[in-house]
Amino acid sequence: MVKYVYDFSEGDKEMKDLLGGKGANLAEMTKLGLPVPPGFTISTDACRAYLKKGQTPESLAPEVTQKLREVEDKIGRKLGDAEDPLLVSVRSGAKFSMPGMMETVLNVGLNDQSVHGLAKMSGNERFAWDSYRRLIQMFGKTVMDIDGDLFLNAHDALKAKRAVTADTDLNADDLRELTETFKGIYEKEIGSPFPQDPRDQLDAAIEAVFRSWNTERAVIYRRREKIPNTLGTAVNVQTMVFGNMGDTSGTGVCFTRDPSTGHAGVYGDYLMNAQGEDVVAGIRNTEPLSALETQDKKSYDELRAIMRKLETHYKDMCDIEFTIERGKLWMLQTRVGKRTAAAAFRIATQLFEERLITKDEALLRVTGAQLTQLMFPQFDSSANPPLVARGMAASPGAAVGGVVFDNAQAREFKEAGKPCILVRRETNPDDLPGMVDAEGVLTARGGKTSHAAVVARGMGKTCVCGAEALDVDAQARELRVDGRVFKTGDIIAIDGTTGEIFEGEVPVADSPVTTFLTHGLEAGLEAAQTEDMKELVKAVADLVDHADKRRRLSVRANADTPQDAERSIAFGAEGIGLTRTEHMFLGERRVLVERLILSEPGSDARQEAFDKLEELQMGDFEQMLPILGGKPMTVRLIDPPLHEFLPDLTSLEVKVAVAEAKGEECAEDKQMLAQVRKMHEANPMLGLRGVRLGIVFKGLFELQIRALVRAAARLQKEGTEAHPEIMVPLVGSIRELQLVREVAEDIIAQIEKEEGVSLNIPIGCMIELPRAAVTAEHLAEEADFFSFGTNDLTQTTWGFSRDDVEGVFFPDYIENGIFGVSPFETIDVHGVGRMVKLGVENARQTKPNMKLGVCGEHGGDPESVHFFEELGMTYVSCSPFRVPVARLEAGRAVAQKEIGRDE
Amino acid sequence: MVKYVYDFSEGDKEMKDLLGGKGANLAEMTKLGLPVPPGFTISTDACRAYLKKGQTPESLAPEVTQKLREVEDKIGRKLGDAEDPLLVSVRSGAKFSMPGMMETVLNVGLNDQSVHGLAKMSGNERFAWDSYRRLIQMFGKTVMDIDGDLFLNAHDALKAKRAVTADTDLNADDLRELTETFKGIYEKEIGSPFPQDPRDQLDAAIEAVFRSWNTERAVIYRRREKIPNTLGTAVNVQTMVFGNMGDTSGTGVCFTRDPSTGHAGVYGDYLMNAQGEDVVAGIRNTEPLSALETQDKKSYDELRAIMRKLETHYKDMCDIEFTIERGKLWMLQTRVGKRTAAAAFRIATQLFEERLITKDEALLRVTGAQLTQLMFPQFDSSANPPLVARGMAASPGAAVGGVVFDNAQAREFKEAGKPCILVRRETNPDDLPGMVDAEGVLTARGGKTSHAAVVARGMGKTCVCGAEALDVDAQARELRVDGRVFKTGDIIAIDGTTGEIFEGEVPVADSPVTTFLTHGLEAGLEAAQTEDMKELVKAVADLVDHADKRRRLSVRANADTPQDAERSIAFGAEGIGLTRTEHMFLGERRVLVERLILSEPGSDARQEAFDKLEELQMGDFEQMLPILGGKPMTVRLIDPPLHEFLPDLTSLEVKVAVAEAKGEECAEDKQMLAQVRKMHEANPMLGLRGVRLGIVFKGLFELQIRALVRAAARLQKEGTEAHPEIMVPLVGSIRELQLVREVAEDIIAQIEKEEGVSLNIPIGCMIELPRAAVTAEHLAEEADFFSFGTNDLTQTTWGFSRDDVEGVFFPDYIENGIFGVSPFETIDVHGVGRMVKLGVENARQTKPNMKLGVCGEHGGDPESVHFFEELGMTYVSCSPFRVPVARLEAGRAVAQKEIGRDE
Repeated sequence: MVKYVYDFSEGDKEMKDLLGGKGANLAEMTKLGLPVPPGFTISTDACRAYLKKGQTPESLAPEVTQKLREVEDKIGRKLGDAEDPLLVSVRSGAKFSMPGMMETVLNVGLNDQSVHGLAKMSGNERFAWDSYRRLIQMFGKTVMDIDGDLFLNAHDALKAKRAVTADTDLNADDLRELTETFKGIYEKEIGSPFPQDPRDQLDAAIEAVFRSWNTERAVIYRRREKIPNTLGTAVNVQTMVFGNMGDTSGTGVCFTRDPSTGHAGVYGDYLMNAQGEDVVAGIRNTEPLSALETQDKKSYDELRAIMRKLETHYKDMCDIEFTIERGKLWMLQTRVGKRTAAAAFRIATQLFEERLITKDEALLRVTGAQLTQLMFPQFDSSANPPLVARGMAASPGAAVGGVVFDNAQAREFKEAGKPCILVRRETNPDDLPGMVDAEGVLTARGGKTSHAAVVARGMGKTCVCGAEALDVDAQARELRVDGRVFKTGDIIAIDGTTGEIFEGEVPVADSPVTTFLTHGLEAGLEAAQTEDMKELVKAVADLVDHADKRRRLSVRANADTPQDAERSIAFGAEGIGLTRTEHMFLGERRVLVERLILSEPGSDARQEAFDKLEELQMGDFEQMLPILGGKPMTVRLIDPPLHEFLPDLTSLEVKVAVAEAKGEECAEDKQMLAQVRKMHEANPMLGLRGVRLGIVFKGLFELQIRALVRAAARLQKEGTEAHPEIMVPLVGSIRELQLVREVAEDIIAQIEKEEGVSLNIPIGCMIELPRAAVTAEHLAEEADFFSFGTNDLTQTTWGFSRDDVEGVFFPDYIENGIFGVSPFETIDVHGVGRMVKLGVENARQTKPNMKLGVCGEHGGDPESVHFFEELGMTYVSCSPFRVPVARLEAGRAVAQKEIGRDE
Repeated sequence: MVKYVYDFSEGDKEMKDLLGGKGANLAEMTKLGLPVPPGFTISTDACRAYLKKGQTPESLAPEVTQKLREVEDKIGRKLGDAEDPLLVSVRSGAKFSMPGMMETVLNVGLNDQSVHGLAKMSGNERFAWDSYRRLIQMFGKTVMDIDGDLFLNAHDALKAKRAVTADTDLNADDLRELTETFKGIYEKEIGSPFPQDPRDQLDAAIEAVFRSWNTERAVIYRRREKIPNTLGTAVNVQTMVFGNMGDTSGTGVCFTRDPSTGHAGVYGDYLMNAQGEDVVAGIRNTEPLSALETQDKKSYDELRAIMRKLETHYKDMCDIEFTIERGKLWMLQTRVGKRTAAAAFRIATQLFEERLITKDEALLRVTGAQLTQLMFPQFDSSANPPLVARGMAASPGAAVGGVVFDNAQAREFKEAGKPCILVRRETNPDDLPGMVDAEGVLTARGGKTSHAAVVARGMGKTCVCGAEALDVDAQARELRVDGRVFKTGDIIAIDGTTGEIFEGEVPVADSPVTTFLTHGLEAGLEAAQTEDMKELVKAVADLVDHADKRRRLSVRANADTPQDAERSIAFGAEGIGLTRTEHMFLGERRVLVERLILSEPGSDARQEAFDKLEELQMGDFEQMLPILGGKPMTVRLIDPPLHEFLPDLTSLEVKVAVAEAKGEECAEDKQMLAQVRKMHEANPMLGLRGVRLGIVFKGLFELQIRALVRAAARLQKEGTEAHPEIMVPLVGSIRELQLVREVAEDIIAQIEKEEGVSLNIPIGCMIELPRAAVTAEHLAEEADFFSFGTNDLTQTTWGFSRDDVEGVFFPDYIENGIFGVSPFETIDVHGVGRMVKLGVENARQTKPNMKLGVCGEHGGDPESVHFFEELGMTYVSCSPFRVPVARLEAGRAVAQKEIGRDE
C-alpha cells in the first residue's frame, strides 16, 4: 500500500517531488534537530489520487490519525482539546513555489469549547476569540466556498457600530460577538452549523487544499510558469505556535546574507508580540533583527546558530521564518533565499571563497539574466531621487523623459529631440508607434505578460508596468498619484530593473560591470564608486572568467558597422557571426541602389551603379576586417527584397494622385511609381529576397562577393590578417547554393590570380527555412558551414511575421498559455527547436564536424544558449551587448551538464 | 574484370541501366530472332569509368576488337575494307530517352580507299561520296568540335558555284570535290589530316559519345527532367544498312496501333529509296505503309509478322524503325510507342480485352494527366477550322477570343465582356495582369518551362507557347504569320492540348468523357459523336471503374458553394474535404463583416452583426449539407485576416488625400482609413489569421460553429442526414486547438440540449505550418482528424508566397534546375513532402488510425497522389474537376505498388 503521510522526521530536502518544497524543507530542518513545531506532510501522491478519483484515498484517514496522535503525544496536547487544545495549520506546498495560488487554513482545532481552553492557557481571551473567528472565516471561505465579502462586511459593520477603524480596536467581547455573527453566516450559507469536531475541520481543510490545485487561477499560473498540471500539491499539517502571546513572543524573517547586496552577515526583521499576518498587514513597523539581541539574547543566539547551521547545510544563503512563543524559538520555514542580481554574484563568489561550494557550483548560482541586469545603465542611487511609486519591473533599463499620453505626443517629443516616457493605463496594439518613439513605457495596469511588458521586452525598451497607484487620465492628459499631478512634459524616471518610478531628472550612470566587460578589470574597478560595487565587479570578473574556461561553445557577435565590430570585440566576441550587407546600402548609397534597380539589365547605367557600389562596399570591408585582428567575419549577402530601397508604394500613390488632382507636374514620380508598383509584393517577407534575388538579379551577389574578396586580397598583401566567410541567405535547395558557390569560386579564383594571393574563404549558408532544415544533409554537401537564422526560422515554422503579430496577439497568447514567453525571445524548443535539431542532425550526417552556428537573436538568450549547447553547435552569435551573457551561459551550460543539476 | 562490351545477342530489354534504352531494345529484338543489323553495345559502366578518369578504361579497346571481329565475321566484311567495307554507326543511348541531346556518327569506316569499295559494291558512286563527306562533316563537328558552319558554308558555296539549290542536285563529282574541301577544312582546323584508319575513327567516335554526356545542353536537359547525372550513356555500334540503294530499298517508321486514336491495325510511313535523314529533312513526301505491300510484298509480310511479334512480346503498342536494303528487311529500333491520351485509354483496354495484359496493367498504361486532357472542352474538329500555326501545348484547354497585345488591352476586353487571347513574343512578370484577364496566352518564344507556360499552368489557363512561326509586333499591335496579319480584336483560337492555333471563331464542345464522369456512361455515350469517341468513353469508364475498385485512398473535393458541392458529388467525390467559410462572407455580406470589424467589442452593434451573420451562415450550411446525402463535409473556420474584408489601404489613402487636396468632404472615408491603417499588415500571409484570429477576435469562430451545429441539428430533426466536421485553420500549437475545441464542445453540447438531438461532429485541424507537422504527436491528442494544407505548407516550408513569387522567379528557377516543376503543382517530395511525412508519422504515433487528409491543390495532382498513397493517408481532397484524376491515380498507385513497376 502506498504511504501517504510522512512525519517531518521522515523526509528531507531532496523529497520535493513527494513532500513539496515547504514540506521537504520542514523535514530537513527537523532532521537537523532544529526546533520545528511538530507536524506531518500529506504527500503529493495523495493529492494525485484525490484528483484522479474525486475523493481521498481510503487509507489516508487512518494514516493521518496515526501521525496526528504522534504529534499530540510529542506536544502533550490533543487536537481541539477543551482544556488545552492543540491547534494546527493546514497549508499547501507544491514542488514549485506558487505564491498565493493555493489555500491555507490556520487555527484548526478551535470550537465552542476549545476557544475557552485557548483563552485560559494563553491568558488572553481577546486572542482566543480572534483566533476562532479567523478559523471560521478562513474555513468558510476556502473550504466551503462562502463569499468572503460576507465575513468582511460583517466585520466592517461591527467596527462601524463600535465607531472604530482598526481591527485592533475591537475587544474580546466584540470578537466573541463577531464569532457568533460569523457562525450565523456560515450556517445560513451552508445549511448546517460550523463543524465542532476538530477532526472534521482537519479533514475538510486537507481536502480543500487538494481541490485548490485545480482552481482556475492556479491552472493559469502553472500554464504560464510551465509547471506540469500532473504534479499535485502536498499538504502540511503543523502545530500552531503563536508569536502574539505577549512581550516574550514575536515573529520574524531573516536571511543569512544580505539578499540585496550580498553582504555577509545577518539580515532580517523582527516584530515583538506579533504574528506573521501582522507583519504582512503592516500594522506596526518591524525592527531590525538586532533588536532581538537586546530583547531576548538566548533566542537570538540560538537563531544565529541555526542560521549558520542552515547556510552551511544548504551551502547557500537561506531565507528563514521563525516565531518565538513565550521565549521558545520555533522554526517555521526555510528555503534558499531569493536575491538581487548583484547579491547573486557576490554570494556565489563568497561561498566559493569560503570553500562551501566549488567554482562550477558558484557559476551555476548566477544567471545571464542577472548579468544583463547588472550591465544596464542605472540610476545614480547617490542622487536619492524622490520615489513616486513602484510597479513591476517589466523590461530592464533606466529611462528618463517627459510624460506623454499618446502616439501623437510621443511623436512630437521625438521630433523635437526630447526624450519622453509613454504613460498609459494599459497599452494595446494601437500604442505601438508611441512605444517606438518613447524612451520607456509606464502603465498602471497589467502584469509581466501584459501587452506593454511583452512588446517592450521585444523592443529592448525600458518598461515598468502595473503600477497600481497611478491614475492615468489620458483624456485630461494627467497622471495623478498620491495627490500629485504630472502633466505632459513633466519629467519622470523609470527603472525597469527595480520597478521604481521617480520624479524629475535622475542622473543615469554607466554600469561599472559593463566598463569591466569592455575595458577590463582595472577600468571596471575604477568606475565602481563604492566598495560594494568594487566587490561586485570582482565577483563578475571571477565568474565570467570561469565561464570562459568552461564553455565549449564559441561566442560571436552580429555586427554591421566598424563601431559594432569594435564593441563586439571589446565584449569578448570571438568573431563576427553575421554582417548584414544590406545595411551598407542605406544612407547616401540608396540613390545608387535606386539607379541599379531602375536601369536596364546589361546597360551602362547599371554597370556603372554596380561598379560604384562595389568600390564602396569594398571600402566597408576594408574598414571592418582589420578590427577583428584575424578573427572570422561571416558576411551575409544581401537579403531584403530590392523594393525596400525604393519609396513606399502607398506614399507614392498618394503623392502622385494629389499632384494630379492639383494639376501639378509629377512625371518623375509617376515613372518611379510604375517601377514601385511593378516590384510591389503583398508579402515581402515571402518574396523575391535572399538567394532568390541573388539568382534572378544578375550581378548583385557578384558585386558583393568581388568587393569582399578584393578587400581580403588587398589586406593580405598589406600583411593584415583577414578571415571573411561568405554566407548565402534564405537557401531552400542545394541547387541554389550550388549556383552561388560556382559564381563565388570563380570570382575567388580570378582575384587570387590577379592579385597573386591565396585566400581561404569558406562559403556557407543560412538555415532559416524549414526546407533547409529538413534537407540539411543535402545542403551540407555544398556548404562549408551553416548558420541557423532562428528569427526567420521562427517566422516560417510558426507562419507569422514578428513585425505583424508580436504586439497584436502575443499578449493574448501568453495570457492563454499558448506561449510561456515570446518565441522570438527564447527559442521555442518543441517547435522551432525541433527544426534546428533536425537541421543539426541532418548536417552532421553528411559532415560530422561541420561548423554550425546560430545568428538569430536567440544566440544571446540564456535558455536558448543552453539548448544550443545541448545540440552540440559550434558557436552562437548575438548582438554585441549580449556577448557576455552568452559567454556566461555557455559556461553554465557545461558546468550544469557535468554537475547534473541547476539551481 | 568488368565486362564493358555486349553483343546484341547478350542483352535484353530489362538491361536499360547497363545498355541504355536503345541498346536494350536492340538486344531484345536480336534475342527474338528479328533481323537486326549486327552490332554491339558499350555499357554505361564504360561511360562512367571514362567520366571518372577522363580516359577510356584500358580493357575497352580489346573488348571492342573482339566484338567487332564477331560482327565482321557475321557479315563477312571488314570495317573500312578497301574492296567491300563494313560501315558502322556509333550512337548514344542512355537509360532515359534524351532526344537530340547527344551525339551520333554515321558511316564510320569510310576513307580514301573504302569509299571506292562502297561505290563499287553499291554501284552508286554519288552515294559513296555523299556518305564519305557526311562522315567527315559529322566526325569533324561532333568528335573534333569543329564549327559546323564551316562545312555548311562550303556546301552552300559549292551549290552556289553550280547554281543549284537542292543538295540532291549535286552529282558524284561535285560530292567528291566537296569531300576534298571538307578534308581541307578538317586538316586546317585540327592540324592533321582526317583519320584514315577506320578503327581510329571508331574509337574517337565512341569517346565523343561518352563526352557528349556532359555537354551543357545535356546537363540542363537532365536537370530539368530530373535524370541523375551519374547514369552515363551507353554507345551502340551497329552495322550500317542503307535504304537509299535503289527502288528495292527504303526506310520507314510504323506503329502497331494508331498512336493518335488507338485504333487497332497497322500505321506507318514508308519512303522508297531513302534514308531516315531524308524523311526527317522532308525532301520527299512519305507514303502510307500500305504502299510497301504493293512494292515489296515479301518485306511487307515479314514486317507485319514482326510487328505482331513485337507487340505480343512487349505487350504494348510498339514504335518501330526499319530499313530495307535491296529487298532485305532490317529492324533498326523499337520501343513502346508514344501515344495520345485517347489512344492510351483505348489501347490499354484493347490489350486487356485481347488478354495480353491484366486489368491492373491496363490501369497503369494510362495516367491522370491523360484523363485531364480528355476532360477539357475541345474544339469541335468537325468544324475543320483553318490552322494558322503550331506551337507547344503548354497548358491544356481550348480558348477563343480577340487578339490583344498588352495588359491594358486585355483589361479593356475583360471589362467589355469580350474574351481575348493575350499574344506576346514572350511573357515576363509584367504581363501577369493581362494573363489573368485573358482566356488564353499565346507566345512566339519559349518552351514548356517558359514564364508563360509555368504561370498559365499555375493559373489553369490555356496556353500555347513557342510558336516560332509567329511574328509578334507589340509596338504596331500586329501578329504576323505566313503573310497574314492579325490586329487587335481579330479572333483566334488556341488549343492548349495540341498546340494548334486556328483562325476565327472555332466552336468549343464539351468533352463526352466529362459528360460520362458527371452523368454516367449512358449520357457519355450519347454525347460522343463518333464511334471512336464512344469507344474512348467506354475505355475511360472501364479503367476509372477499375481504379475505384483498387484504390485505398478516399477522394473528396474542395467546395465552397452548393454548385461546387453538386459538381463534386457528380464527379464522384466521397465528401467535401474543405469548405472555406470566408467565401461565404463576401458579396452582399461584406457590409456586415465591415460592421463587425468597426464596432466595439461587446457592443450591441457587434452582437447584431454577429447574429445576422450567424443566420446567413446557417442558411449556407443548410443548403450545402443535404447535397452531400450524408457524406462528410469538413468546414474550415474563417482563415484570412479580417482586413481583407475592408477596402484596400493604398486606394483609400489616395481617395482621402485627393478629396482633402480638393477640399471635399470625406469624413466617413477618413474614419474607415483609420481602421484600415490600424489593421494593416506588412505580410498578411503571416499575420493575424486562422486560429489566431479566432482566439483574439472573440465571437467570430463561435458564430460559425453555432451556425454549423444549428444547421446540423435542424437537418437531423427533419430526418436529413448531415455529417459536418469542424476544421481549425493555421494551428501551430496544441493549446490553440484546445481553446477552440473547448468552445466548440460547449456549443455542441448546448445545442444538443436545446434541440434534443445527439450530434457527432469531429473536430480537427489543418496541418499547414511546419510547427504543426513537427509537433503533430501533440496536436493529435486534441484532434479527431488532420487535413494537410499543402499549399500553405509549401509556402511556409520554402518561405515564399505563391502570389508574390510564382510568376516572378519560378521560370528562372525551373530554367536553373532548382525546380523540376512548380512545387505548387506537384508536391516537393524532398522538402515539403518530408514535412508531411513527419506530420503523418508523428500523428500515427499518438493515434495509429487517425484520419489524415490532404486538402491542398496537390490532392488532385497525379504524382502527389502517389506520394500520399505511399504515406498511407486516408483521403485526398481536390477541386471538383480533379476528382476523377485523383480517383484514377489513387487506383494506379495501389496497382503499381502491387505490380512493383510503372509504365
